[in-house]
Amino acid sequence: MKPVKVGLMGLGTVGTGVVRIVEGHQEDLQGQVASPIVISKILVKDRAKARSISVDHGKLTEDPWEIVRDPEIDVVVEVMGGIGSTKEIMLEALERGKHIVTANKDLMAMHGPEILAKAKEKGCDVFYEASVAGGIPIIRTLIEGFSSDRITKIMGIVNGTTNYILTKMSQEGAAYADVLKEAQALGYAESDPTSDVEGLDAARKMTILATIGFRANVSLEDVDVKGISSVTQEDIQYAHQLGYEVKLLGIAERQDDFISVSVQPTMVKRGHPIASVNGVFNAVYVHGEAVGETMFYGPGAGELPTATSVVADLVAVVKNMKLGVNGRQASVSYKEKKLKTDEQIASKYFLLLHVEDRAGVLMQIAQVFSQYDVSIESVMQPATPGQKGAELIISTHAVSKASMNEVLKAFAELSSVQTIKSVYRVEG
Amino acid sequence: MKPVKVGLMGLGTVGTGVVRIVEGHQEDLQGQVASPIVISKILVKDRAKARSISVDHGKLTEDPWEIVRDPEIDVVVEVMGGIGSTKEIMLEALERGKHIVTANKDLMAMHGPEILAKAKEKGCDVFYEASVAGGIPIIRTLIEGFSSDRITKIMGIVNGTTNYILTKMSQEGAAYADVLKEAQALGYAESDPTSDVEGLDAARKMTILATIGFRANVSLEDVDVKGISSVTQEDIQYAHQLGYEVKLLGIAERQDDFISVSVQPTMVKRGHPIASVNGVFNAVYVHGEAVGETMFYGPGAGELPTATSVVADLVAVVKNMKLGVNGRQASVSYKEKKLKTDEQIASKYFLLLHVEDRAGVLMQIAQVFSQYDVSIESVMQPATPGQKGAELIISTHAVSKASMNEVLKAFAELSSVQTIKSVYRVEG
Repeated sequence: MKPVKVGLMGLGTVGTGVVRIVEGHQEDLQGQVASPIVISKILVKDRAKARSISVDHGKLTEDPWEIVRDPEIDVVVEVMGGIGSTKEIMLEALERGKHIVTANKDLMAMHGPEILAKAKEKGCDVFYEASVAGGIPIIRTLIEGFSSDRITKIMGIVNGTTNYILTKMSQEGAAYADVLKEAQALGYAESDPTSDVEGLDAARKMTILATIGFRANVSLEDVDVKGISSVTQEDIQYAHQLGYEVKLLGIAERQDDFISVSVQPTMVKRGHPIASVNGVFNAVYVHGEAVGETMFYGPGAGELPTATSVVADLVAVVKNMKLGVNGRQASVSYKEKKLKTDEQIASKYFLLLHVEDRAGVLMQIAQVFSQYDVSIESVMQPATPGQKGAELIISTHAVSKASMNEVLKAFAELSSVQTIKSVYRVEG
Repeated sequence: MKPVKVGLMGLGTVGTGVVRIVEGHQEDLQGQVASPIVISKILVKDRAKARSISVDHGKLTEDPWEIVRDPEIDVVVEVMGGIGSTKEIMLEALERGKHIVTANKDLMAMHGPEILAKAKEKGCDVFYEASVAGGIPIIRTLIEGFSSDRITKIMGIVNGTTNYILTKMSQEGAAYADVLKEAQALGYAESDPTSDVEGLDAARKMTILATIGFRANVSLEDVDVKGISSVTQEDIQYAHQLGYEVKLLGIAERQDDFISVSVQPTMVKRGHPIASVNGVFNAVYVHGEAVGETMFYGPGAGELPTATSVVADLVAVVKNMKLGVNGRQASVSYKEKKLKTDEQIASKYFLLLHVEDRAGVLMQIAQVFSQYDVSIESVMQPATPGQKGAELIISTHAVSKASMNEVLKAFAELSSVQTIKSVYRVEG
């Protein structure tokens, strides 16, 4: 049995996990693919650096092209990240007939169509299960498990850092800034946390999920993004009073082939399966016309969980090699993308307003809602002793985003509304 | 494009769903497989019976062999159930080179190896995603998503009827017998509920999941089964007091390649993801050495959810036909089955004893535990005013099943223990 040779690009957290699994589970892997799988070259930034695993020093290289140009290498496993030069390297690897397994969400969200087109042209596989939700095999599930269904909604907690922060805020009553610092100290958040807390990381993952789930090429620019940096403890307390949890949700929806994708802090009704997904765990809730409600839960990051997905993809590539069917999967994106307008995007909302405390204010506010056809589910005015002015907590029925924007614009011009403190989408 | 012809065997709940999806999603399906998929013959018990969907009467037949012998038919979709004659029909269909998609858990749990061997011999596909957990693509996930990992534990709520009954008992304080009657009236339970409530249905599904997850041929006889008919409201109340829910769990475990599989009412710690799976929903929790904790949640039965899985399998068969790789998947069961002995099966337990209310009894009981090396986590003696005797609620640390059996035997002989009212496995 000729061994299958793998060039591993990147020996950070995930790369180390890939080495551990390929070596540690070699017997199991051979049981499935009937060939040894050998990592024959490893791209690193610094060959001299000390490693937490023992690797044959002769396999290490600092030059990616050494892997790309090696005719012996069948599969490139890319876990180094990056976009610009990484894309060039991947395209050249495909040009030379190498299959690709990648965990790179940025690359696939921004250049997925180009890379997949090149793969198709060259008859190569490109698999990227690990790019979304770490150890959860959600890409496979969407492509194969629900091939028969029409998916209408995908809601994802796809960023562990923000879910950790929101869980801590919810369970311990801590302030955003304090929990962020703690998450940074524990290594759950980067020293520059922007990509996570502003929702950009989640937006990239939702781009990938929406493209696959709706079979149309969704771009990162199509995603409406808002992060969690403005979520306050006060918001969370009010959410609890109403029976909700605040979660950073990616939401991709489809109706009559019109699509919308967004990422925003969302109030999720307790009892909805995604409301109880806590800590660094990820989950993807999928609603299909026929199947109804499903949810897939697991670790969203980490050395071994992410490497599990990478190596499962590697097994899939090798099985295809044995069958001679690499690159033969039908393209998943065969539908024309049609984006919903703000008039077509409907959801329930939660608003927290700081208003003047005098007679007639509520009537003014009610008039604005009525003017834009926004139907109110409930209005609460909690006691705020000692504070100047009053607080109003308003829940709406499902209403178009366009109408809600009009309402918010009107409030901004209304002198009796002193501050629009919070606006949340509501689910569940 | 030559259409792919399907012979559908069974036009009950699932069969009707298959017709609806194949017809309703035809355009989507063609987008993926680049061929029309046509149901050309349908096996029914009574051609004259009125149907909830309109089907071409000329397609209906009461003779299964008409489908088996039709050389035009590429794929048999078997959703009629049964074991004896169904097995013969399936084997003959394979003999004639037809691929099979089946939702038949009994058939696959009891004759899976024979059917899969015949399929391999004839180069045919046999897919059976719908046989376990209805709309949840758990079989795919175990085979492909976790191909790289070593699965150590599978815990499943794989029977909707019993989960509905236990949820009602937990949430509404109702008695088992009353909820069962209600479930029967609603059509969630059969008029003879034995297969569901005694755990046999769950055992068949766990046989299939353990075989795939552990890559060894587990038999139905290997599964230790206990149903929910002895679960009392008192048990559930005590479980709640201790922070647990009572669930009928299928549990398949592996340690050093030694396997155990069981189905039993289990006390699951609240906060464990599977503890909050309620009503007729199913869920399968999978723990892998590398991936850690994951869970897959969705509808376990019903016309369209189950048909979603059936038609997804049909899509997979047709894709394989296009690639010319039917029957080429490596067999998943390549490991020798080694069953754990009672000494090797370890878990925590909950016991409810009715004992004499006098000094020294607790000491006697403690002595029995100590004699068999069973370590106690907690003992509670709730107030039972007006009752004769006392109740003892005992939680143990993890202990072997063999030791627990010895303890129970000793209690049966101890005059101070009047009744062993309940024994539960504890998880989470």
